[in-house]
Amino acid sequence: MKFTVQQIADLIGGSIEGNAATEIFKLSKIEQGEPGSISFLGNPKYTHYVYETKASAIIVGNDFVPEQQIHCTLIKVENAYNAFAKMLETYNKLTSKKTGISKFAAISDTAVIGEGCYIGDFVSIGENAKIGNHTKIYPNSSIGDNVVIGSECTLYSGVSVYNDCSIGNACNLHAGVVIGADGFGFAPQTDNQYAKVAQIGNVIIEDNVEIGSNTTIDRATLGSTIIRKGVKLDNLIQIAHNVEIGENTVIAAQSGVAGSTKIGANCMIGGQVGIIGHLDISDDVKIAAQSGISVNIPKGSIIMGSPAFDISNYRKSYVFFRSLPKLADRISNLEKQVKKISE
Amino acid sequence: MKFTVQQIADLIGGSIEGNAATEIFKLSKIEQGEPGSISFLGNPKYTHYVYETKASAIIVGNDFVPEQQIHCTLIKVENAYNAFAKMLETYNKLTSKKTGISKFAAISDTAVIGEGCYIGDFVSIGENAKIGNHTKIYPNSSIGDNVVIGSECTLYSGVSVYNDCSIGNACNLHAGVVIGADGFGFAPQTDNQYAKVAQIGNVIIEDNVEIGSNTTIDRATLGSTIIRKGVKLDNLIQIAHNVEIGENTVIAAQSGVAGSTKIGANCMIGGQVGIIGHLDISDDVKIAAQSGISVNIPKGSIIMGSPAFDISNYRKSYVFFRSLPKLADRISNLEKQVKKISE
Amino acid sequence: MKFTVQQIADLIGGSIEGNAATEIFKLSKIEQGEPGSISFLGNPKYTHYVYETKASAIIVGNDFVPEQQIHCTLIKVENAYNAFAKMLETYNKLTSKKTGISKFAAISDTAVIGEGCYIGDFVSIGENAKIGNHTKIYPNSSIGDNVVIGSECTLYSGVSVYNDCSIGNACNLHAGVVIGADGFGFAPQTDNQYAKVAQIGNVIIEDNVEIGSNTTIDRATLGSTIIRKGVKLDNLIQIAHNVEIGENTVIAAQSGVAGSTKIGANCMIGGQVGIIGHLDISDDVKIAAQSGISVNIPKGSIIMGSPAFDISNYRKSYVFFRSLPKLADRISNLEKQVKKISE
Repeated sequence: MKFTVQQIADLIGGSIEGNAATEIFKLSKIEQGEPGSISFLGNPKYTHYVYETKASAIIVGNDFVPEQQIHCTLIKVENAYNAFAKMLETYNKLTSKKTGISKFAAISDTAVIGEGCYIGDFVSIGENAKIGNHTKIYPNSSIGDNVVIGSECTLYSGVSVYNDCSIGNACNLHAGVVIGADGFGFAPQTDNQYAKVAQIGNVIIEDNVEIGSNTTIDRATLGSTIIRKGVKLDNLIQIAHNVEIGENTVIAAQSGVAGSTKIGANCMIGGQVGIIGHLDISDDVKIAAQSGISVNIPKGSIIMGSPAFDISNYRKSYVFFRSLPKLADRISNLEKQVKKISE
Repeated sequence: MKFTVQQIADLIGGSIEGNAATEIFKLSKIEQGEPGSISFLGNPKYTHYVYETKASAIIVGNDFVPEQQIHCTLIKVENAYNAFAKMLETYNKLTSKKTGISKFAAISDTAVIGEGCYIGDFVSIGENAKIGNHTKIYPNSSIGDNVVIGSECTLYSGVSVYNDCSIGNACNLHAGVVIGADGFGFAPQTDNQYAKVAQIGNVIIEDNVEIGSNTTIDRATLGSTIIRKGVKLDNLIQIAHNVEIGENTVIAAQSGVAGSTKIGANCMIGGQVGIIGHLDISDDVKIAAQSGISVNIPKGSIIMGSPAFDISNYRKSYVFFRSLPKLADRISNLEKQVKKISE
Repeated sequence: MKFTVQQIADLIGGSIEGNAATEIFKLSKIEQGEPGSISFLGNPKYTHYVYETKASAIIVGNDFVPEQQIHCTLIKVENAYNAFAKMLETYNKLTSKKTGISKFAAISDTAVIGEGCYIGDFVSIGENAKIGNHTKIYPNSSIGDNVVIGSECTLYSGVSVYNDCSIGNACNLHAGVVIGADGFGFAPQTDNQYAKVAQIGNVIIEDNVEIGSNTTIDRATLGSTIIRKGVKLDNLIQIAHNVEIGENTVIAAQSGVAGSTKIGANCMIGGQVGIIGHLDISDDVKIAAQSGISVNIPKGSIIMGSPAFDISNYRKSYVFFRSLPKLADRISNLEKQVKKISE
C-alpha cells in the first residue's frame, strides 16, 4: 500500500495537523510505530506514545490536545478507533480479491452460483444449492443440498453446511465451522440404550452474522435453530438444536448453549459460559466468563458464577470465600470465648 | 411427503380417534401446528395445545383423556415421544438417499468399499482401508491407511480418521470429527524442552456410537482408546489417549476427559465437565455440567462442583456461598456482643 | 517389526540382564505384556508386573533391584520412560513413510514445494506459498497465499492455514487445526450493531510446536499472534488475536486465551482454563484445570479457582466451602448461646 496522509484523512473524514503529503506504507500498533506507518490512539494510557512514536502519522480524537511536542502528523477524527477500523477494512478489501471458480470444485448441475463469486479448490456444492453474488467459498468446504447462501458472504476453508440450511447476506463463517449437524437428541430405552431422534429441522442464519473457527450450530429437531442478524460468535462455540439467538448478541469463545434455549438481543456473553436448555435469557443480559446459567434471566441482568447470580453479589461472596479459613477461625474463637463465659 | 393418518398409525402401531383418511404433509412442533401437519404431545404442560392447535393430527399417549373438544385427529400410542421419534426417523430415511461413488473421490487401489456405499466428492481413502456396506462418507473426509469402518455408518463432511483406527457398525460421525490424532504425550527434558512421545496405538469405536461435530478422540500411546457400543458424544468434546468409555454413556458438549481415565457404563455427563487423567468413574454416575472431577467416583454417584462432590451437599454449600456476606456479618455481630459481655 | 533385545539396547543405550538374542515383535503396556513384546517400568507402583508379566523384555531404570525371580530379559537405562519414548519414536518413523505429491492436489504455480515432501489428496496450496523439505501435508488441508511452512513439519488432514501466516520447522499440526482466522474484533456502534474490525496481521508459529486437533489460533489485528518454539497445545484450544505464548509452555485441552494476553515461558496450564485479555502471565506459572484468570500473574505462581488465587489457599477455602452448612450451624448455635447469656 502507499497513500498520503491527505488520502487517508479523506477516507476517514479527518482533519490534518502536520504534513498532509506524508507517505504511509503500512499500519502499525502505536507502541510499534516506525517511519512510514500510521497508527491510532485508542486508549488514553497509551498517550505517551504519541510523543515518542516513530510512526509517520497518528489518528487521534478531536478532543486530543498535545501536552508536548509532536514529531508526526496527526489526523483528528470523532472516534479514533472507529476511524482506524475503517482504514483496516479498506486495506483488507484491497488485499483480498479472490474471484473465479476453481476447476477443482465440484458443483452440482442443479446448483445456482451468483455473479462475481469465488469458489475454491475442492469445494463441493450440492443439489439445488443457491450461492448469492460476490460470495466467496474457500477450499475444501462442503455445501449440502438445498442450502441457500446470500450475497457478499465469505466461507473460509473446511466449512461444512448440511442440507437445507440457510445463510443470509454479508456473513463470515471461519474455517471448520459446522452448520446444521444433528442436534443431540436421544430417547432413553428400557435396556439402557438410546434411540436416536432424527433431526429434520434446519439452521437459519440471518444477515451480518460472524461465526468463528470450529464453532458448531446444530439443526433443529423440528423447525429451525435461528441466529438473528448481527450476531457475532467467536471460535469453538456450541449452539444446540432449536436455540434462538437474538439480534446483535455477542458470545465469546468456547461458550455453549443447550437445546431450545432462547437468548435475547444485545446480550454480551463471556467465554466458556454454559447455558442449559429450555431457558429464556432476555435482552441486554451480560454474563461473565465461565458462568453457568440454569434459570431464566431477566432483561438487563449482569451475572456471574456457576450457578450464576448478580455479579456484584457474586464478587462479595467470593471475597469471603477467599477468607473462609479466617471466618472459620473467628467462629472457633467465638466458641471458645462463649464456652468460657458460660462456665 | 404425503401420508394418511392411517398409514402413520400403522407405522407407529397406534389407534386412531378421528378421521383416518386425513392427509399429512409435514411434521411440526405442537405449538406451531398448521393444517396438514402432524405433531405429538410429549410434555403434559403443553396439553392445552391439543385443543388449540391447527395441526391435522396429534400423537398422544394411550392414557390421554380429552377434557375439551378436539378438532384434530388423534393417534394413541404407548409412548408418544418414542412414536414421534420413529416417525421422524422414517421421514429422515426417505429424504436422505445419497448413494454412489463420486468421480472426485480418491480411493486407494488397495481399499475395499462395500455395497451400496456413498462416497462423496473429495473423499480420500487410504491404503488397505475397509468400508462396510451402505456406509456413507460425505465430501472432504479423509480416511487413513488400514482404517476399518463398519456397515450402515454415516461420516459427514470434513471428518478425519487417522491410520489404523476402527469404527463399528451403525455409527454416526458428524462434520469435523477427528479420530486418532496423537495423544498429548511429552517427556520433560532437563533443558525445559519436551520430547514428543510417539503415539502408536489407535482408537476403537464400537457399534451404535454417535459423535458430534468437531469432537476429537485421540489415539492411545500404546493399545487403544476405546468407545464402547451405544455411547453418545455431543459436539466439541475432547477424549484423550487411552481413555475408555463404557456402554451407553452419554456426554454433553464441550466436556473433556484426560488421558487413561476409564468411564463406566450408563453414565450421564453434563456439558463442559472436565475429568482429569488416570481416574476410574464407575457405572451409572451422573455429573452436573461444568463440574471438575479429580478423584475416582463410585457407582451411582450424582456429583457437582469443581472439584465435584455429592450434588445435594454441593447445592447446600452453594446456598450458603451466596449468603456469605450475611454469615460474615453475623460473625461480626457475635464478636461485638461477646466482647461486650466479656467486658 | 522384528528386533533382538540387543538391537533395542543399542538403540536406547541400555545394558542387558538376560538373553540378548530374545526377539521382539511389538510394544506393549506392562500390564498387558505378552510373549514377543517389550514394555517398560515407568511407575514404581507397577513394579509387581515385572515379576508377573508375560512380556519378553522390560526396560527398567539402572537403580532397579529385583526382589523376586524374573522371567523376562531386562534392559537397564538411566530413564526407562525416556528410553521407551525413544523406541516408540523409532517405531513410528519406520511405519509412517508417506511421500510424493498426490495427483489430486491443487498447487499454485507460484508455490514452492521442498524436497521429499508428501502432499496428500485434495490439498490446496495458494499463491507464493513455501513448503520446506520433508514436510508432510495430509489430505483436504488448505494452505493460503503467502504462507511459509518450514521443513520436517506434519500437517494432518483438514488443517486450514490462512494467508500470510508462517510456521517454523518440525511442527505438528493435527487434523482440523485453524491457523490465522480473523480475531474477534468488533467496534460497537450507536445502533447496537457491531462493525467488524478487519484483522490484517498474521500468526507466527516457531519451531518444534505441536498443536492438537481442532485448536484455533487467530491472526492479529495488526502485527502477529506468536507461538514461541517448543510450545505444546492440546486439542480444542482457543488462542485469540495478538496473544503471545512463551517457549516450552504447555496448555491442556479446551483452554482459551483472550486477545493480547502474553504468557511467559515454561508455564503449565491445565485443561478448560480461561484467561481474559490484555494480561501478563509470567514465566514458570502453573494453573490448575478449569481456573479463570483475570489479573496479571507473577513468575512461578501456582494458582487455582475462578477467579484464581494461590492453589493451597484455594484448597483451604474449598475445604470450608464443602462444610459451609456446618459453619452456618455453628453460627446459629453461637447466636442462641449468646442470646441466652445476654438475657
